[in-house]
Amino acid sequence: MSVESVGALHLNRNDLETFITSAYLAVGMPCEHAIQTASIMADADLHGYDAHGVFRLNNYIKRIQAGGVNLNPQFRVVREHPSTALVDGDNGQGHLVVSFASQIAIRKASQNGIGWVGIRQSNHAGPGALYSRLPLAHDMIGLYAAVANVNRMAPWGGAEALLGTNPLSIAVPSYSSPDVILDMATTASSHGKLKLAAQRKEKHLDGWLENKQESAVKDSKDAHYRNLPPIGDYKGYGLSLMLGFLAGTLNGASLGRDVFDYNVERGKSTNTGQFIAAINIASFTDIGGFKNHVDDMVRQIKTSPTLPGIEEVRLPGERTFKTRLEREKDGIPIHPNLLSELNDLAEKLGIEQLAA
Amino acid sequence: MSVESVGALHLNRNDLETFITSAYLAVGMPCEHAIQTASIMADADLHGYDAHGVFRLNNYIKRIQAGGVNLNPQFRVVREHPSTALVDGDNGQGHLVVSFASQIAIRKASQNGIGWVGIRQSNHAGPGALYSRLPLAHDMIGLYAAVANVNRMAPWGGAEALLGTNPLSIAVPSYSSPDVILDMATTASSHGKLKLAAQRKEKHLDGWLENKQESAVKDSKDAHYRNLPPIGDYKGYGLSLMLGFLAGTLNGASLGRDVFDYNVERGKSTNTGQFIAAINIASFTDIGGFKNHVDDMVRQIKTSPTLPGIEEVRLPGERTFKTRLEREKDGIPIHPNLLSELNDLAEKLGIEQLAA
Repeated sequence: MSVESVGALHLNRNDLETFITSAYLAVGMPCEHAIQTASIMADADLHGYDAHGVFRLNNYIKRIQAGGVNLNPQFRVVREHPSTALVDGDNGQGHLVVSFASQIAIRKASQNGIGWVGIRQSNHAGPGALYSRLPLAHDMIGLYAAVANVNRMAPWGGAEALLGTNPLSIAVPSYSSPDVILDMATTASSHGKLKLAAQRKEKHLDGWLENKQESAVKDSKDAHYRNLPPIGDYKGYGLSLMLGFLAGTLNGASLGRDVFDYNVERGKSTNTGQFIAAINIASFTDIGGFKNHVDDMVRQIKTSPTLPGIEEVRLPGERTFKTRLEREKDGIPIHPNLLSELNDLAEKLGIEQLAA
Repeated sequence: MSVESVGALHLNRNDLETFITSAYLAVGMPCEHAIQTASIMADADLHGYDAHGVFRLNNYIKRIQAGGVNLNPQFRVVREHPSTALVDGDNGQGHLVVSFASQIAIRKASQNGIGWVGIRQSNHAGPGALYSRLPLAHDMIGLYAAVANVNRMAPWGGAEALLGTNPLSIAVPSYSSPDVILDMATTASSHGKLKLAAQRKEKHLDGWLENKQESAVKDSKDAHYRNLPPIGDYKGYGLSLMLGFLAGTLNGASLGRDVFDYNVERGKSTNTGQFIAAINIASFTDIGGFKNHVDDMVRQIKTSPTLPGIEEVRLPGERTFKTRLEREKDGIPIHPNLLSELNDLAEKLGIEQLAA
């Protein structure tokens, strides 16, 4: 159990899912959709994506109540080719839209080698890793990217936030090791992590915030209103922009000044864009051989010498894997501030509160 | 004309192509292959990829002379599905192999929405942007990545260089603006730029080299022997690894300890891996509408306010575009040290030297 979770309420994953499901049912989401969304959100917390699970519930519910999200969406395949599709999410909850699109990508990859599905009229969908990993069970590689739901990155050298944290997730299956799953924002910190730090009233590391002409802002309360620096300076800016074209513009979804802060303008449809791709390993090589090579690379990395003071080298997705094992045993820690927010929400919705 | 190019020999692009062609012919490369490789290399210099054009000729030629590259390769499509292919380059010159694979990716994208072609048994191929841009003429988006030909990046927290600069290039077409073309290493500097700085005996910026426990190494002579830091710390490490799986492992090409310094072990086949993908815009949206949206985003960025002291915000590929226009007019500057190296090579090969 990590230091930060001592004293926090620890919830069983399924209890968390039940709570989230009740919240969605209370605002009128159809039962199957409520369960599916809650399951993905509880999985986010189980894996340690603390900024992308139940932490977002309050805002998701407020957006639904404000009419900003369609509770009865009709997902449509607008264009379709043997290896591509464009999905219109009809402004439904993002988790549902991306899950729908992922199944199409996997089916197309099994038939034609790769499936690439663009998404428009979607919404915030939580951690990309929960979608990029879906193809793994089919012996496929997964790729996912999204246009973030608020602009917090300025073009390199610019002062206006025209881009978001636009995250990229790539997942590769292995045999004996945990699967290798990258899930990264194109900024030096994701916006979610900053919001999380703000809620917990934590100080955070230097370098997370672009300090422009002033000294670095260290108090995370201000974080919400400041720009985040791209990783690798102009490179992260370029990567965010290109992912924006691929996840947004190509699919007819928002980018640039069409993106607004979905935490603020809650009644407005976001037209969020994402893409999910699945690459069938068998179309390129022997699946067993591939996984053995991945395992071998993992072994090379894990057994390589570390820098002085560093205990171990980690693989992308390794910490998440360990967190899941830990939380399956000990439960999911809910920070007291989050607990209080969730129980306020429960009271308003007339559903059972989480035990304090 | 930039300050650094004053006093340097300025060569017409076609004269440079002719010189490079002669060098390849002198070591026995078939005529068509010599011309094609030289054309791509001259284009690299024309666009300002100074670390990836004629600068590499000496090493390319030495590898051919050492038997490290196959002068008469038979490119084979080893596996093929409607939207994917695996190309075996038979250890041919990388430029030729990737060009071959690019045409397959474009054809598959026009038929099925996307074409993703993996490559093995290839070699160093120069700047990725010259390949990712090939789909643009077909109203497609291009993606390219490669496993670098020397390991210079340690896993985050590690001390052993198990990964390379593994570059990623993404190209998106526009109407009125220059096309938007990202070409980035996953390290804070590409290895090529460091080698270039070493040849020019330049000092370089702090932060390019990982300084471990010591003070930053500023003399680029040492650069060749040091690790490069990943962009965004653990994120760039993760991205380099995932691109390595996609460009290398998936295609049966080298990654990790199978990668060696191709500048040193010149007689050995590198089994370089790359991938090139083309996404057909028409499979997702109206081409004209897409390009208009790209232009609009470019306009938003170019007209956005800059930070104090910054003259303009640049788009990925903008500097390259301007360099090409400049060099089409003024010629390609050849640094005196490079000129001397090339004329030594010319003498050894018995071909006409470049005018001093």
